[in-house]
Amino acid sequence: MNLCSYLKMKKHILVVPGDGIGQEVTAVGKKVLEKIAEKFGHEFTYDEALIGHAAIEAAGNPLPDETLEKMRASDAVLFGAVGHPKYDNDPSAKVRPEQGLLKMRKELGLYANLRPIKLFDELLSASSIKPEILRGSDILFFRELTGDIYFGEKGRENDGDTAYDIARYSTYEVERIARKAFDAAMTRGKKLMSVDKANVLETSRLWREVVQRVAKEYPEVTVEHQFVDSAAMLLIKDPRRFDVVVTANLFGDILTDEASQIAGSMGMLASASIGDGTGVYEPIHGSAHDITGMGLANPMASVLSAALLLDISFGLKEESDAIINAVDLVLKSGVRTRDIADADTPKDKILGTDATGEALLSYL
Amino acid sequence: MNLCSYLKMKKHILVVPGDGIGQEVTAVGKKVLEKIAEKFGHEFTYDEALIGHAAIEAAGNPLPDETLEKMRASDAVLFGAVGHPKYDNDPSAKVRPEQGLLKMRKELGLYANLRPIKLFDELLSASSIKPEILRGSDILFFRELTGDIYFGEKGRENDGDTAYDIARYSTYEVERIARKAFDAAMTRGKKLMSVDKANVLETSRLWREVVQRVAKEYPEVTVEHQFVDSAAMLLIKDPRRFDVVVTANLFGDILTDEASQIAGSMGMLASASIGDGTGVYEPIHGSAHDITGMGLANPMASVLSAALLLDISFGLKEESDAIINAVDLVLKSGVRTRDIADADTPKDKILGTDATGEALLSYL
Ligand SMILES: [Mg+2]
Ligand SMILES: [Mg+2]
Repeated sequence: MNLCSYLKMKKHILVVPGDGIGQEVTAVGKKVLEKIAEKFGHEFTYDEALIGHAAIEAAGNPLPDETLEKMRASDAVLFGAVGHPKYDNDPSAKVRPEQGLLKMRKELGLYANLRPIKLFDELLSASSIKPEILRGSDILFFRELTGDIYFGEKGRENDGDTAYDIARYSTYEVERIARKAFDAAMTRGKKLMSVDKANVLETSRLWREVVQRVAKEYPEVTVEHQFVDSAAMLLIKDPRRFDVVVTANLFGDILTDEASQIAGSMGMLASASIGDGTGVYEPIHGSAHDITGMGLANPMASVLSAALLLDISFGLKEESDAIINAVDLVLKSGVRTRDIADADTPKDKILGTDATGEALLSYL
Repeated sequence: MNLCSYLKMKKHILVVPGDGIGQEVTAVGKKVLEKIAEKFGHEFTYDEALIGHAAIEAAGNPLPDETLEKMRASDAVLFGAVGHPKYDNDPSAKVRPEQGLLKMRKELGLYANLRPIKLFDELLSASSIKPEILRGSDILFFRELTGDIYFGEKGRENDGDTAYDIARYSTYEVERIARKAFDAAMTRGKKLMSVDKANVLETSRLWREVVQRVAKEYPEVTVEHQFVDSAAMLLIKDPRRFDVVVTANLFGDILTDEASQIAGSMGMLASASIGDGTGVYEPIHGSAHDITGMGLANPMASVLSAALLLDISFGLKEESDAIINAVDLVLKSGVRTRDIADADTPKDKILGTDATGEALLSYL
């Protein structure tokens, strides 16, 4: 066996576009993976499956068993987005697209959501935050994904007059994500911020106790505890203060969306959801039904999700970096999608989803 | 009875400095109230009471009965801040300063926290957000204060291995704050944003249903529903999109702190906590033990809290505006406290707490 055939990797990737612009952006993400396979001599096979509103329409279930089986059988999942505006205006709907997402996370044991907030120099001015505040920011969020108020019992009392939701965290849930975050901190700046609301919530007090305990295993890492309201403020005031951040499900949901503005746009941010089995890689943007089917969506978050997939699930660091470099070169060439264009962007440099994808492929 | 004696108001104000810089800043707030009383011919009497860590130290109770009685007997409360870092590092402490704050809100029925985010032109550049994004922003938050996960049952299960917190909202709680927010929207831009997480939480679905129902009583008001993670992002991306915002306790806690960065500093923001009895007026900043006793704290939020007190609890709009105008004139004179100074601020214009207070008094 020569070196080339040794390095050649056979992997099966499941593409799950979901709803709205999920279709358009994962199509570009998949093309980039195909080009990487061709260029680096890997053999990637693909399948596709339904989730969210699309799955409700087709099968009456936001996460059909068939989708779940295909996910379990694949080496990694390239995911799009779920959601449909018709449910937003119908708060009483029993079957909802987001249930598919939550069930997938639970079934695959995806307890950690990694969200790198990386800044491309070309986009520093795209943010509403001043470039001099932003420059050099590099944050890696670890958001807990399978616990908290998102998965506790919820319901109505008093003839529907009172609603409740139960937040719950157990020691092992905090421990396992804290370890992943500390491990990452050791490979980065050896700084970790844990975000909670320990001055009010019991779940947060447990969270802080466990993080403090795990911290003893990592004496080299400097640990800072912040309340979530303070962290929401500091993210704008001083983003460079953040390096690795570990936080609960709800707080992570809010803070990572807020942090997306540091990068100028949701359209540039990838995420990884990992646990003990198949990892799922997806943009942090939603289904964006306002621009669905118009060919305007920014595919770079899906492409960067493909890069994360190669890095984390397949250990293909060089291939991953090639994609990130292609994104950087496309941006340096002046190409922008509408969401990251500004007043200085020439009209002919504002491209749609497919043309941006072609530009990316040309740099691979 | 001549006009002057008719307009002369007799009011009793309770000053509750609390912890940390609460002492220093409410001292300035009180001086401003004294000057206003003298200038406009009102008769304000004052008393003082303990809360938070200070009250724990003195009486073993973060909200002594005596404090509560004095609050009920007063016409308005000028409040400082509560909190002490020793509890942050002791998550298991049973008696905590913040319990005093929570109990006060519950006992006085303070169900609505109003937080105006007003920008002083002079401070546009103090924010880390670009001035062109900020200019013209004017937001009024209504944060629900007595329900949600802050007041539900909380505790441990499985020998302390699992922690839980229960979030709960009843229809009447949402209704009464929604009405206050809609009333305010009618006197402003007739725009209201309701923030929830109705795609995941049952309490949020109740929240949205009730807001949609109350909205029918205000057909002139344009209502927008946003998820909390999206709102956290939009606050940075497009603050002018916000006018009146109504949201639950936890989401309001996070979003209003984030929004404080729009105003350049926590040190400039006042808040009112109102219900059916005595109203409480306080800065949104915390006890800031890192600068306590150093004479560096910005007293302007306490002074603007005094202005809100005069406006909302006493209906003294002219007196309130006189204070806001004095703050504006102090800023125009170039005076800054450390927290709102920038690289262009001459050193001799950076004043401490008391000197800033003297400057404010000179413009009244
Ligand atoms: Mg989110
Ligand atoms: Mg807060």
